[in-house]
Amino acid sequence: MSDFTKRKSKEEVISSLKGIALEMHNKMERGTPPTMTLPVRSKTNIAFDQKLEVYKYGKKKTIRDATSLGSARQLLRSLYVTEFIEQMIEAGKSSTLREMYYISESWGHGKFGTQNDSNNLAEDLEIVTKCLREDFKLRPEEDGARIIGDVTFEEKNRKGDWMRINCRDDVGDSGYGVPYNVESEKLKLITEDVDFIMAIETGGMFDRLVENGFDEDARCALIHLKGQPARSTRRIMRRMSDEWKKPIIVFSDCDPWSFRIFASIAYGAIKTAHISEYLATKGAHYLGITADDILAYDLPSDDLTKQDLNALDAELTDPRFNSGYWKEQINLMKELGKKAEQQSLAKYGLDFVTDTYLPEKLSAIGLDY
Amino acid sequence: MSDFTKRKSKEEVISSLKGIALEMHNKMERGTPPTMTLPVRSKTNIAFDQKLEVYKYGKKKTIRDATSLGSARQLLRSLYVTEFIEQMIEAGKSSTLREMYYISESWGHGKFGTQNDSNNLAEDLEIVTKCLREDFKLRPEEDGARIIGDVTFEEKNRKGDWMRINCRDDVGDSGYGVPYNVESEKLKLITEDVDFIMAIETGGMFDRLVENGFDEDARCALIHLKGQPARSTRRIMRRMSDEWKKPIIVFSDCDPWSFRIFASIAYGAIKTAHISEYLATKGAHYLGITADDILAYDLPSDDLTKQDLNALDAELTDPRFNSGYWKEQINLMKELGKKAEQQSLAKYGLDFVTDTYLPEKLSAIGLDY
Repeated sequence: MSDFTKRKSKEEVISSLKGIALEMHNKMERGTPPTMTLPVRSKTNIAFDQKLEVYKYGKKKTIRDATSLGSARQLLRSLYVTEFIEQMIEAGKSSTLREMYYISESWGHGKFGTQNDSNNLAEDLEIVTKCLREDFKLRPEEDGARIIGDVTFEEKNRKGDWMRINCRDDVGDSGYGVPYNVESEKLKLITEDVDFIMAIETGGMFDRLVENGFDEDARCALIHLKGQPARSTRRIMRRMSDEWKKPIIVFSDCDPWSFRIFASIAYGAIKTAHISEYLATKGAHYLGITADDILAYDLPSDDLTKQDLNALDAELTDPRFNSGYWKEQINLMKELGKKAEQQSLAKYGLDFVTDTYLPEKLSAIGLDY
Repeated sequence: MSDFTKRKSKEEVISSLKGIALEMHNKMERGTPPTMTLPVRSKTNIAFDQKLEVYKYGKKKTIRDATSLGSARQLLRSLYVTEFIEQMIEAGKSSTLREMYYISESWGHGKFGTQNDSNNLAEDLEIVTKCLREDFKLRPEEDGARIIGDVTFEEKNRKGDWMRINCRDDVGDSGYGVPYNVESEKLKLITEDVDFIMAIETGGMFDRLVENGFDEDARCALIHLKGQPARSTRRIMRRMSDEWKKPIIVFSDCDPWSFRIFASIAYGAIKTAHISEYLATKGAHYLGITADDILAYDLPSDDLTKQDLNALDAELTDPRFNSGYWKEQINLMKELGKKAEQQSLAKYGLDFVTDTYLPEKLSAIGLDY
């Protein structure tokens, strides 16, 4: 496993960050312009890692070199961000990426142009220091997932106390809200009495399965992904897979964006390919809605838009979808010219999904219940 | 108070819905085409109700008449929806509005054209029957609010047991997730030890106030609105205002959409003006970010877009904003040509909002802490 999975102390995080400043300083003393070397972060530079069984960045590199103005600005920002993170760690604080963007107002030439700049830099620093953004105390804006089912976690609360929460008995209808940091210093996996984990794209379907008692009938934990899953959502699934040896089953809409959600869970996301072995769960299974399902279950569907078609074409050149299964699904969807939502199963009534669809689909992969 | 606030039994709900069918049937027997009379649901037909102190629909009506095809279709749908709701109530089920849209696939000529049609019809039926959508067991897609602070609720879980949850001690960092139904049969307000309730637009700012311990320092409960607040979010604020007599303070971005969020909380939303006395909290206070704040605190801001300017102009002819305060704010924002986010306060560091901004703004309205 890479260095990322070895948890670092506060001191190690600060020292890794300071290492960047030191290296720049040393280069300047030697009369060499400071540089920072980073992998190219696009789909043209990800490849399957045979050992880790997830997609990682390949060999293509970009070099930030202080002799060009844009790169020099990025290096300056790295120094300001380092200082900011050090202050947060010392004060026991965290901040959103958006707050960091605004804080850069006082960084002179280091001020971020856009929010995207600050997000990317946080990931760059992960790559260079082999620390995690969570170690840097930087949080995303989006909410984490919700979980319902017979699994028990311990979360360290603001006061430093460990609270034990069973996601079936100790939560209301909306379930357990996953915090942004799900590493062992913040969250522990305690006990479970489930056979698998089902990750669900939409809130409506999550609520349907909860109301129908699917978690109890099928002995599973349900996770609401909330669209493109946050890092903490992907990480907690990976931990449940590693520590509890439970299969991760993904149940989403049938559209190109849902395929990407699955790819980020099972293979690794392009933006975070430097930590795929941390966030992605090899062997996660795409249950549906598949393009075949639209035909097999005669589901209400919508026409693919131009954006949808472009996204499907992009997927055909994405190494993560370079398998017989995905090529077939993508080509079938293009042929049909249709996409369908999870909730379209309601065409046959509110119980069809739990009485018919899921038992059939789960049985096909050997998960009878 | 109107009939809406008297909670109805399952039998009363079913009988109200059947009343619609009966009335149509009777008219047809008499040889008269069935009709349904509804208020015009737009800003041109809302007015301040002196007694209820919220905005309600005025006198303009539209009549659905079975002699036109579109109206006849709507009447047919009403009958199908009535039957569907009755089945759900009897089975102890609920459904999302999206599911109802898909279920209408089998309703022949009653099939909904768009999701919007099904949403609007649910509201129409509320008006005609004086029941609530929650009585009909229809749920929205969006998640409810999150709450953190020293307030205690009891929520009835799926098994019918009442669970007591303190929103400071019994929840993780993400807080208590408000369910879609917050009526007394589902949720009880038990105890509180706070001086006010602060409703916050963005997740980033909610998390900031939580991390800074603002709920404890300022003795308040914090609610994350998640943008335009769900009905359950507005309703739970109204209940906390009524039952606990606590002021509701709204802290949002400074842009035209945030002003609408506030209006829906304090005055009533246009789409739900038939139940404003149920969802809106008279006396809710808009704390900021105000247009003045952009100047007073020299906040980082963005230029207003064409859409923003159109929204501001629309607000100038919205009766809810027809006050000196709002006219001044809206005109000042137009004059500046700028909007600003809550998180822009981070320009002055992560503690500025809790050390300086909120104490100053709260003190100005007599809420010193």
